[in-house]
Amino acid sequence: MNNLDPLRIILVEPAGPRNVGSVARVMKNMGLKRLVLVNPHCDPLDPEARQMAVHAQEILETCRLAPSLTAALEGCQRAVATTAQPRSLALTLETPRQVLPWLQESPAPGALIFGREDKGLTNEEINQAHRCIGIPAHPDYPSLNLAQAVGICAYELFQTPATEPEGEPLAPLEQVEGYFQHLEKTLLNIGVLYPHTRGARMAKLRRLYQRSGLSPSELALLRGILGQVDWLWQQFQSRRRPGEAE
Amino acid sequence: MNNLDPLRIILVEPAGPRNVGSVARVMKNMGLKRLVLVNPHCDPLDPEARQMAVHAQEILETCRLAPSLTAALEGCQRAVATTAQPRSLALTLETPRQVLPWLQESPAPGALIFGREDKGLTNEEINQAHRCIGIPAHPDYPSLNLAQAVGICAYELFQTPATEPEGEPLAPLEQVEGYFQHLEKTLLNIGVLYPHTRGARMAKLRRLYQRSGLSPSELALLRGILGQVDWLWQQFQSRRRPGEAE
Repeated sequence: MNNLDPLRIILVEPAGPRNVGSVARVMKNMGLKRLVLVNPHCDPLDPEARQMAVHAQEILETCRLAPSLTAALEGCQRAVATTAQPRSLALTLETPRQVLPWLQESPAPGALIFGREDKGLTNEEINQAHRCIGIPAHPDYPSLNLAQAVGICAYELFQTPATEPEGEPLAPLEQVEGYFQHLEKTLLNIGVLYPHTRGARMAKLRRLYQRSGLSPSELALLRGILGQVDWLWQQFQSRRRPGEAE
Repeated sequence: MNNLDPLRIILVEPAGPRNVGSVARVMKNMGLKRLVLVNPHCDPLDPEARQMAVHAQEILETCRLAPSLTAALEGCQRAVATTAQPRSLALTLETPRQVLPWLQESPAPGALIFGREDKGLTNEEINQAHRCIGIPAHPDYPSLNLAQAVGICAYELFQTPATEPEGEPLAPLEQVEGYFQHLEKTLLNIGVLYPHTRGARMAKLRRLYQRSGLSPSELALLRGILGQVDWLWQQFQSRRRPGEAE
């Protein structure tokens, strides 16, 4: 897990308490703790903000208020701004995936800056950041809700290299092989397989189960089914009517 | 740019109109168009939903209502469920980045399923999907807002370059469901399942086969095995000795 503790999420003049609350929630979801509001046009402790934050009340309660972006950035070493669309300003937009690892490697605190719900950041504010993120979006409607933009960036920050899948370990291969041999014998007995089709069909079944990756308890269940089919087959054999073809 | 047109976003029993509106907005931001609500507990055309959707009104207006997840999945070929946390059910959770490219390569429509705001998806609902996503989040507070979860997945989908599908396509989900029901009936008949164990054991078997992803020819082979076991069972029934217990 990454240590995102020192990273600041800065919202410039947010107007909607629900947005601020949603930002707090998704920050805590992704292990971010420091929220800074620049000249907010709403109260971060408004009941609507608290309602949206759910179990992230402490982020609202400990958020810092700053009179300007410059003040909010004090003590930071790397800063990244976000913007919805290309500006008149000659600006290189990069994706979250390109920029955020660099922000996270910042030796002193880094800052990720989000603009107003309606107008985003001014050019002067964008120029206070080192790099600028444009979240990839469809040209028909590229403007994301503020909390969604924070959520997507927070998610990218939280991404760590893929870890081992969770859940039960796989069954030992010799046990899986034992099951396949048992399966083949049973299917030959009950007439699903014939000597000339057994190869291709068993290959298909092996592939299906191997692709799935059988756990020990799944293997036990499949063996249980075969055992019951075998029993049925024996009953059938012992009760075959005289003269009945095999 | 990817063509995400046919992909369905399915919300099961959403209760908050604001969440539904926010989902519509972020769907349009990321080029997604088809919203399906399973038995919603709110009106997708509620003023609060419309307010949050902003310029994505048409997604609310054209969203489909379905009486059950099974109905919502009709015609889909690949389905992915989302869940906040590991369940009792032995379930392999994968990340959006691991699973969503596979969903996008689905030759027929794919579906991405999100659960209730408070309780997520039931195990039975999760078992209707082939794979299951857990969005990586901090253990202190891993529960994301519904619209944030959709937003992160939609963003990942929009990032994914579409590639050509490999190999045989998957069997239609309604045929897979038909197989599971046949399997359950047969296993009850032959005494592998009992009424009190059927739920847990069928869940295990469903998970195993869904994880594998069955092709039409594999499904035909499995159906052939069941058909033969059924025949054997009928023979056994018709030849039961007088007075023999059932």
